Parts: sequence; structure tokens; C-alpha cells
Amino acid sequence: MNNHHPSVKNILERARAERRAALSAADCVELCRAYEIPVPPQALASSAADAIRVAAQIGYPVAMKISSPEIQHKTEVGGVALNLGEAAAVETSFKLLSARAKGSRPEATLEGVLVQKMVPGGIELIVGASTDPSFGKLVAFGVGGVMVETLSDITFRLAPVTIAEARSMLDGIRSQGVLNGLRGGEAVNRDALTALVRKVSLLVDDFPEIAEVDLNPVFASPAGAIAADVRILLDFEPAPARFRPSQEEILRAMNRIMRPDSIAVIGASAEDGKIGNSVLKNLINGGYQGRIIPIHPSLDSVLGRKAFRSIKEVPERVDVAVFAIPARLVASVLAECGQKSVAGAVLIPSGFAETGNVEMQREVLAVAREHNIRLMGPNIYGFYYTPKSLCATFCTPYDVRGKVALSSQSGGVGMAILGFSRSTKMGVSAIVGLGNKVDIDEDDLLTFFEKDPDTEVVAMHVEDLKDGRSFAEVAKRVSVKKPVIVLKAGRTAAGARAARSHTAALAGNDRIYDDVLRQSGVVRAYSLNEMLEFARCIPMLPTPAGENVLIITGAGGSGVLLADACVDNGLKLMEMPTDLDQAFRKFIPPFGAAGNPVDITGGEPPATYQNAIRLGLTDTRVHSLVLGYWHTIITPPMVFAKLTAQVVEEQRRRGIDKPVVASLVGDVEVEEACAYLFERQIPAYAYTTEKPVVVLGAKYKWARGAGIFG
Amino acid sequence: MNNHHPSVKNILERARAERRAALSAADCVELCRAYEIPVPPQALASSAADAIRVAAQIGYPVAMKISSPEIQHKTEVGGVALNLGEAAAVETSFKLLSARAKGSRPEATLEGVLVQKMVPGGIELIVGASTDPSFGKLVAFGVGGVMVETLSDITFRLAPVTIAEARSMLDGIRSQGVLNGLRGGEAVNRDALTALVRKVSLLVDDFPEIAEVDLNPVFASPAGAIAADVRILLDFEPAPARFRPSQEEILRAMNRIMRPDSIAVIGASAEDGKIGNSVLKNLINGGYQGRIIPIHPSLDSVLGRKAFRSIKEVPERVDVAVFAIPARLVASVLAECGQKSVAGAVLIPSGFAETGNVEMQREVLAVAREHNIRLMGPNIYGFYYTPKSLCATFCTPYDVRGKVALSSQSGGVGMAILGFSRSTKMGVSAIVGLGNKVDIDEDDLLTFFEKDPDTEVVAMHVEDLKDGRSFAEVAKRVSVKKPVIVLKAGRTAAGARAARSHTAALAGNDRIYDDVLRQSGVVRAYSLNEMLEFARCIPMLPTPAGENVLIITGAGGSGVLLADACVDNGLKLMEMPTDLDQAFRKFIPPFGAAGNPVDITGGEPPATYQNAIRLGLTDTRVHSLVLGYWHTIITPPMVFAKLTAQVVEEQRRRGIDKPVVASLVGDVEVEEACAYLFERQIPAYAYTTEKPVVVLGAKYKWARGAGIFG
Repeated sequence: MNNHHPSVKNILERARAERRAALSAADCVELCRAYEIPVPPQALASSAADAIRVAAQIGYPVAMKISSPEIQHKTEVGGVALNLGEAAAVETSFKLLSARAKGSRPEATLEGVLVQKMVPGGIELIVGASTDPSFGKLVAFGVGGVMVETLSDITFRLAPVTIAEARSMLDGIRSQGVLNGLRGGEAVNRDALTALVRKVSLLVDDFPEIAEVDLNPVFASPAGAIAADVRILLDFEPAPARFRPSQEEILRAMNRIMRPDSIAVIGASAEDGKIGNSVLKNLINGGYQGRIIPIHPSLDSVLGRKAFRSIKEVPERVDVAVFAIPARLVASVLAECGQKSVAGAVLIPSGFAETGNVEMQREVLAVAREHNIRLMGPNIYGFYYTPKSLCATFCTPYDVRGKVALSSQSGGVGMAILGFSRSTKMGVSAIVGLGNKVDIDEDDLLTFFEKDPDTEVVAMHVEDLKDGRSFAEVAKRVSVKKPVIVLKAGRTAAGARAARSHTAALAGNDRIYDDVLRQSGVVRAYSLNEMLEFARCIPMLPTPAGENVLIITGAGGSGVLLADACVDNGLKLMEMPTDLDQAFRKFIPPFGAAGNPVDITGGEPPATYQNAIRLGLTDTRVHSLVLGYWHTIITPPMVFAKLTAQVVEEQRRRGIDKPVVASLVGDVEVEEACAYLFERQIPAYAYTTEKPVVVLGAKYKWARGAGIFG
Repeated sequence: MNNHHPSVKNILERARAERRAALSAADCVELCRAYEIPVPPQALASSAADAIRVAAQIGYPVAMKISSPEIQHKTEVGGVALNLGEAAAVETSFKLLSARAKGSRPEATLEGVLVQKMVPGGIELIVGASTDPSFGKLVAFGVGGVMVETLSDITFRLAPVTIAEARSMLDGIRSQGVLNGLRGGEAVNRDALTALVRKVSLLVDDFPEIAEVDLNPVFASPAGAIAADVRILLDFEPAPARFRPSQEEILRAMNRIMRPDSIAVIGASAEDGKIGNSVLKNLINGGYQGRIIPIHPSLDSVLGRKAFRSIKEVPERVDVAVFAIPARLVASVLAECGQKSVAGAVLIPSGFAETGNVEMQREVLAVAREHNIRLMGPNIYGFYYTPKSLCATFCTPYDVRGKVALSSQSGGVGMAILGFSRSTKMGVSAIVGLGNKVDIDEDDLLTFFEKDPDTEVVAMHVEDLKDGRSFAEVAKRVSVKKPVIVLKAGRTAAGARAARSHTAALAGNDRIYDDVLRQSGVVRAYSLNEMLEFARCIPMLPTPAGENVLIITGAGGSGVLLADACVDNGLKLMEMPTDLDQAFRKFIPPFGAAGNPVDITGGEPPATYQNAIRLGLTDTRVHSLVLGYWHTIITPPMVFAKLTAQVVEEQRRRGIDKPVVASLVGDVEVEEACAYLFERQIPAYAYTTEKPVVVLGAKYKWARGAGIFG
């Protein structure tokens, strides 16, 4: 708004000239005023007499604070006096504060003493901004005050924020209840608070040299929000430049890499057990229809395919080179690929940064940048892209096509993706290993998957985001169209330490990740299995039209547990309208319970399930169904599965397609029934009342993030 | 301690005579003094002059509060004045407070005005006590003050509490950090606070007519803890008497029921599909070796067993009668069972309270009490007891013997237990349906399982505890020897509502359940699947000797996720001693990471896994191992499984038996490897880094509750 406001510019220019790391209290107030961030009436006094004059002008009681760019923690040096009610006190305080400041910090430049009107009170809050190496400028909001300090209840967003984003921060803290007023008091002025948060975010966005802002406390009341104290830290060191090709450039390269017409295998081998042999076999056996070109120092052909001594000898264009040679040989061959205008290199070899060879990795990247080659890896299993029957990996081929693209930073997690996919017959479009992520990262993949007609959902295992801001920007755009799931490893301090020793990656503060990922519309998975189940189920579930979830259960006991799970997963149990309640009662025994859950009771025949499910699907006020099946002789598991699939299919044909998930409790036959339902795109789980609800909850998280419900 | 302190007795007797529902402020102070609960110096003043005298005596500044048993919320009627610094203010306040009290509550008995020394400050806390219909007297502790009020951060224990239990309450609140001092301040006096909590718990335990105590605020400081305001509510209505047979009586009856020599089937039937047919078949086909006696109105034999017209005609003693007749016929046949001195009746029929027939259920219970018959159910599937090959249910037989006893209140959950057990080959000793739980409940089962040599772990699905206090007492005793797992359904408000419509059970406040179950050493499962996995794995895992958990992983990525999971589940990642670090480094490649996780890296042969696991098992500082396996060609899944089982077995033979759990990531072959490990009592899961850690965490929760680590 006040983009490059002249007074702010002047203050910062002076600070830069004086090589200051911080602003004085008076300058902080000046910046706030320029950005219309409310501060109490105040002025700088250079003498006791001056202070008395200022105090008289602004009115008692006043607070006084020494103003010096070198003294940030004014209280610590005894540089603050509060609640001064008269001229005598102001006079004494001026002398006292000045003396203390000089005494404890003789080297500090003392600008004077700031005389400030005491704020009449309100809820104590904190608003701030900081600079994160991955995410850049962040704005923060939290509850302050003595008691809540220990809770560190604070929320972050990428700066700058819109008014709506700022408003979401007010709802984003655990103790948000305080904003509604305490002990029957009035609620704070949310608009004023929201505007203040937004202005702080604009300030740091406009002036990158502002490294940190700390408004603490901010007093919020029904009347408004006012910053009683302000600290601002500076950093004139420019942030390191990021490699950020345009979206078009990324897309052009990624298309050639993921959907190549020709692939060279550097280090192709005829010898079983060699990586260069596995890769070549997988390309061939996987059914890839493009040109496969083995590169081998001596052989004329490998596994029946014509081989070349060097990539430079290949007559036609090569899109991708898969490297299956030792790390130390990569750089020189990569330069040859460059001469051949290869779009991407898939660097399977390990032995780079993860083993301490940071320099070798840097060298390889330099070669790639010089020749405009994008690098996948190093230290990866390769990648799968099923629409092209492409298995550019040393693992086993995978060919169940589907709508989910997955990526992993870790090879182990990649193998878990593969095993889980095969075991559950999860259809995938791509599985990509990112490993040390020297170049191609999640942003690049998202940019490709956004346009990829064969991908509808993206799930990513992430240990760090090298450029979190860029990821957030791309994810925000993509997630509106295609759900983006992220498993962020290293959530905890211990996990983060493990991540550092594993990939030398700096794991960020998890709260920041949590907030920014949500801000970007990302569905966060908190465990490996959750990521896999989300990837499997989110594409199966149609987008719900609203928040009303209805439980229909044959087992009352399951109903209770399903209701618990709905609450745990942020789902809204529909309030049952009277007419719908009546309609359900027609189908269920008199002692069954309508309401929500609808308890049809255990002894009912298939028709009761059928009628109840059909009613739930056809009533337009119901947006999603959670089914609880109880194994009985009168309605055996496969009968339930078939009738459920049939009713859902019948309504789909009529154009009614709502999310339906099911929990099946019973003897082992329920497992077969679950498989049957899953094959018909209805997530169904045995012996658990939680999992079906967790996956439905994930779909809702995505829908809310994408603004589906307006 | 001050059991039936005379002054407390007098005050309460007077209140009883005057039919008071509460005590006056002055009486509250009197009770606190009797129990040595610190309160500020104070005295009741009957006139303004008196008030001035008191104030002078105790010293300024003072607070003043009207004292009347009818006025509990003194602030609401303007009956409180704070921070009075001089006689004039005291005089004015006396008149003002008295006038206000008379004005707003003319009918109230005004005892006078309490003049109290102002407390110099400290952290604001709340200590209280309440009376719960299921748990009886509870003591509560929480953080008070304006800001945290909205967090309702409060913890409960059964009263009375020991000093250790009171101390655990201080650690049991989220914002416990405030007790360590704010903004660099000193920590509060924990001993004083603990003593105060304990005394409140003793007060309500000694005097059941004290329904509620509310010390709010309590100011805690380095100097001590002092109750600035006290409210006490009374209830002279005696609590309804509970049916509480002695432990010996329970045991005698339960032994006859669970290990019967003879079982009658009321309503035995030769007709397929009838419940009376299924029950009889299951008893016979299950292999039960005791006498099976069909009761049938006309047949001489059913399924080849001699039948009787009535149980009264059976010549020998009958231990158990399984009812498979309509609800309305139960009461009269039960009376006949009584004449026959049957120990227990298993009431399979539904149609009682769960369908609104509360009266019929009450009648059946009255008959049972009259004849000293214990009732299981009604509205249940029956029960299994594998040591006797006993399947007294209408479900399918189950015969995999093991150490776990399970119970469920819901039939659906019971079927999930059965299916999960069969699917995972989980060995069980018993599965018991409790249904409407008109008589036999979890306490009775625990009392039996405590002594049952075939049961080592008990897992229970619970929707309500009719006598929570009794359960807690028994669970506390049993859980020290045998882990007790509880899945409490109806945790959330929505779930609790569903529970009410399901079993007409009053679902208690979940925080109370959470705290009391923990106090009783119970391991709480938060989902159905968790309960089942805990039941499966806790008996497999040996008891750890200490808190040091070590992760050994082939996949660095798994290591990060396993470390996250350890933190999430309250496990302590061992700090790696330098010598042990050196020892591990001998086995792993130079770029592998020692520390914790020990990352042996992915490309290693079986010997590396073997050496690392052996070292982890033999080093006495390591107490538990979490293994992360990564599927590679060099160490395939079954090779890993076999070597792991072999090393664990080799050390078990040497007397070293530590908990070992494993996460296997890889292609589908890892599933077979997991099954192999599970068969050898090593919990191992595919495609998840969380589950193995969650079950290890459950074992640790039990061990801590049972005081294993001292």
C-alpha cells in the first residue's frame, strides 16, 4: 500500500549508512505511522523539560522508554518506566532512564526518551514478522501476556497477507477464544486487528531489509488494536538468488523429461544385478514405446538394443539420460549430454552430498546449469510415468495406471509407495525420486503435474523445501484444481535432527510448515500410511457439495466410534432435519435411532441398508455418507458390499455422486467385501472405524482449502 | 488427615439443619483452616468499625467480601471490593457492599463482611473438587487468570490423592510451563501447591456431603500457594448405593461362569439359523469338554445331546445358562435358574433397555439379585474362553489360544475383535460381550482376569463406566501386573450423543476419563484399530528395562519418520554415548550416520543389519529397538526377517529380551517378512513408520503407569 513510503525509505537508508542492525524506538514508531499501524500518541523527548511538555500534551498517565538503535531490550537495561501520573515522576524517570542506559550501555547512541500515552488495556497479543531461509518473509500472530507466554500459541503466514488470510490467523491459534472477550467482556475489534496484521505483512514485503518486526504487546479491545511496543531488526545482506526459471521453461523441460521420445541409459549393462542392467530391463519390459539407447564403452548392443560408445555418437535427439555410473564420472558425461541438448538427467548414483561429497554435487550442478540440463536426484531410484509405460528405475516395473502422482525425497519411502501401490492396486500416473534434490524439486514436479492430463492428485514426501516460498506459490495455484498432499518428515525436533544427518537439509520450524502448507491449500499427512491412504482414496472420492456428513450404521457401537472419528477429523455431523428423520424411521425398526448416526440396528435385512443408503444419497441436504456395517447372518459382508456398490452406481448414473466411505466390522469375510468396494471406488476398511473417516476428512480439508464451499 | 475434624463437622451439621446448598465465605475459610489449606489472614466483620479494626490488625491493603451462604457469586452482586488501602475506604466499602447485597438479594442471610489481606500476587491457578455420578469425588487442578480461561486447561484425579498423584497433576496441564516462572521469574513452590491439592482432596473424601469446592484463584509463588477465594457447595442427598460384592464373591461367581463344568442352553434349537442352534453348535464344535445341556420345551435331544424341558429337571449342578429365548420370557426362566443355583446367565437376547424396555431389564435384574445370579448382557453375542475351548456365542467358533482377554460393550466391536483376531492369528484367552451391562461389568471381568493364569493382558471397549470409581480401583491393582487397555467410545460430544442414543449410557466428560484412566495405570487406545493392535502386540513385547529407545535403520528417510513417531508417542530417543557410537561406526559405511537413528544406509549386506541389531541388543544402555528396514536386492525382505528373528532369538537364549519392533518399507515381499516376524513375536509392519512405534509407545505407557522404571 505505502509501497516504498518515503519516510520509511529515509529511515532505512540512514540505518544502512550507519550499518545498524536495528532501529531505535522512535524510528520504529515512525515506520508504524507510515504504515498506519496504530501506536499510542508519543514523541521523543531530549530533556526532562521536553518530556514533561510532551506528557502534558498527550495526557497522563504516560510510559517512558529510552530510544536507541543499539538497545533493543529496553526492559533489560531498566530503560522503561510505566504508569507515570505526574510531571515530577516524568522528570525523575527521564534522568533515571538516561542514566541507566548510559551506565549499562555506554557505547549506545541515545536518541532520547520516548514519552508515550499509556494504553488503557485490552487483550495482550503479539504481531510480528520474520525472515525464513526457505519461506522468506513471514507474518506472525499470537496471544501474549504473562500466562500464555509458555504456550507459544502463535501462527504464521507468508507475507504479504490478504485481509482474508489475516482473518484466518485470528482463528488459527488455540486460544482464539480470548478474542471473543474474557469473563463476559466484549469481543475485540477483529477488523482493526486484521488490518494491523496485514499492514505489518506489507511493511516487510515492501522492504526486504526489514528482517524482523516485533509488536509486543499489541492491545486489542472492542475499540481497536494498538501496538504498545515495537522492535525492528534489519539485515542489509541481500538474500541469495534462487534459480527460478519461468513456468514455461520448467514445463518445456519437464515435459521432455517425463514424456520423452528417447532415453539414453548411461552405463547400460548386460550383467544381471548391475543397476545399469536393471534400468535397461525395466525400460524394455515396462513397455516404453519411445527409443531406448544404451550407452556402453565397448558393446555394440545391450539386451538387443543398439548401443553407442558415447551419447555424442547418437544420431537422433535424446530427451533424457538415465545415469547408472559411479558418482565421480557423472560430471564429464553430463557435459557431453549438454552438447547433445539433453533436457534432463536422471542421476541414480549415490556418493554425493549425502556421503559428504558436497563439492562433487556442486560441480555436477554447475555443469547442468551451463548446459541447461535439468537434474533429477542424485541418489534416487529414478522415476515411473505410467501413461508412457515408462519405468526409468532400477526397481521392479509398475504398471497399474491411475490418477495419482507421488514423489519422495527418500528411496525407502519410494519403495514403500511402490509396495503399497502394488499391494492395494493403487493406480498411479507417476512415482518420482527426488533424493538430494540438487535441481528438480517439488515445484517443478507440481508445475508439470498441474498440466498433466493423466494426473489428478499429487502426493509428496518432503524432508525439506529448499525454496518454500516458490513451492507455496505453485501449490496454492495447483491445489485449487488438483489436491496436493504433503508428508513433511522431520516434524519433531528429533525427527529434524535425523533429517539433518540424513540429507544435510535444514528442517524448518514445523509450525511454519503447518501454517504455510495450509495457506497453500495443501492437505498435510502426518504419517507415511496417511499419505499413502490419502493418495489412494482422495481421487476415488467425488468432491462433496457441502459440509453435511451423515453416518448410517448397522452397529450402534460403530456409530459412536464413527462419530468420535468425525469430530477428530474436523467433519460436521449434519443436524438431522425432522422430515428426513421421519423418512429414515420408515425404514428402520422402532427402537433404531434416527438422528445422526442413523442406527438401523444389527438384525436388519439387506433392504434396510439399501433404503437407508439410497435415502442418504438422494436427499440433497446430505453431502457425504459414512457407512458402518456390522457382519450378521441376515446381511453377510458380500451382500452388503454388493448392495452398497449397486445403490451408489445407480445414483451415479442419475448424476448423484457423493463421497461414500465405509467401516466394516465382522469376521474375516469383511476383508473381501472391503476389496470389492475399493475396486468400485468406495473406500472401505475392516476392523477400523477411524481410517474411512480420516480419508473423508482429508477430502474435506482439500475442498475447504480449494474454496469449494465458498 | 483431619478426618472428621470437629469444627468442619459442626459447620456442616449446621448447614444440614438449615438445609443450605452452600457455605458462606466465612465458613469456607473456616473449613480451609481446619484442613490447613492456606488462606490470607482474614476475619468476619459485623460493622464498619469492626471492619476497620480487622483491617488494622491484618494490615493494609485489604479486600472485602460479603459473607452469606445464599450468595455464592459475590462479584455478580457487587459484593467484593479489592485493594483497599485505608480506613476510610474500608468504612465506605462496608456500607456499600452490605447495601448492595441487601438490595440485590433481600432474602439472603448476611453474616457480615469478610476483611481479607490482599495477596501480594503470583501465578493464578484453580484448585477444586467435584462429585461425578460415576467416579465420585474428583479433585481438579488448572491454570486460572483471564487469558487462559478460554483454554479450559484443567486436570482431574480421583480424590483423595497421594502427594505423588497431586504432583502428577502439576505436570498434567498443557500450560504447566507457567509453574516454572514467567519472564525469567522464579518457579512456584511445587511442594506447597501439591500439599494444597492433596488437602482439598482429603476434605471432600472425609465429608461426602461436600459436593463442590472451588478455590479460585489460588495464587502460587516461590513462597507458597494461597487460596484467595473459596466457594463450597453441599449436597446432603446420599449417593445411590452401588451393588458391590466383595472381590472374593465376584471371583467365585466369575470362575464358575468363565470356567464352567456345565452349561445349559435355554432355547436350544435343532433348526439352522436360530440363535439357540448356533450357540449349541458352537459349544459342541468349539470343543468344550464340560457338560452341555440343551433346554427345549418338547424335544428329548438336540444335536445329539440329551435335552430337558426345564432347567429344574436337570439332575446335576449347572454353572451357566445361556439364554437364546425372546426377551419377554427371560425373567421367569431366570427364576428357575435361581432355584437351580446357576452362577451366571448369559443373556444374548436383545429387546431390553436398548429398545426402550427399561422396565423389563430392571425386572430381570431384580430376579437375578434375588437368586444371586450374575448376568452377562443382555443384548450380547455371548463370550469365548479359549482355555476351556468354550464358545458360548452365536458367532463362529474361535480357537487361537493366547494371552489377551478382550471385552466389548458393542456387538459390532465384538465382531471386529473376532475378525481381526482371526485375520492376524492373534491368540486370545477370552472375548466377552457386555452389551447393556445390567450387572457384570468391566470390574468383574478384571477381577477374574487378574487371577486367570491364561490371561496376561486385558483390552476393553467401553462406552460408559457405570461405577467408574470401582473400575479405577480394580484397574489400578490389576494394571500393575497385567496391562489393561481401554478404548473409551463417545470421547467427543458428538460421539457421546451417539452413545446415549445407543445404550442410554451417560458418557462422562472425556478429560475426566482420560485423567482417571491414566491414574489407574490403564493404557488408553484412541481408536478401534489401536485397541486391537495394542492387544496383539503388548503381550509380544517384553517389559523394557528403561526409557532408552534406539532406532536402527537402513533407510535414512524411514529414520526421520521413525524419530518423528517416537516423539509423537512419548518415547525417549537415547542420547548416543560416544563409545557406543564408535562401536556402531565399525559396522556401517563411513558416510552412514551413527547417533540416533543409527543409519546403516541402504546398500548394506545382511551382516550389517545383523551386527547393528546385535550390538543394540547387547549394550545394556539400550532398552528398546526400533528397526527400519529398506528393501534392497542385497538384503531382501525375508533375509532381513530371518536374520532379525535369529539375532533376537539368540539373545533371548542368553537372557537378553528387549522390545524390538520393525517398520518394513519396500515392494510387496515385505508383507510376508512382516508376517514371519510377527509369528516370532516381533511386531513388524509394512508401509508404515508409525504403527510399530505406536505399539511400542503403548508398552511404555503401561510400564510407566505400573511403575516399572521406579
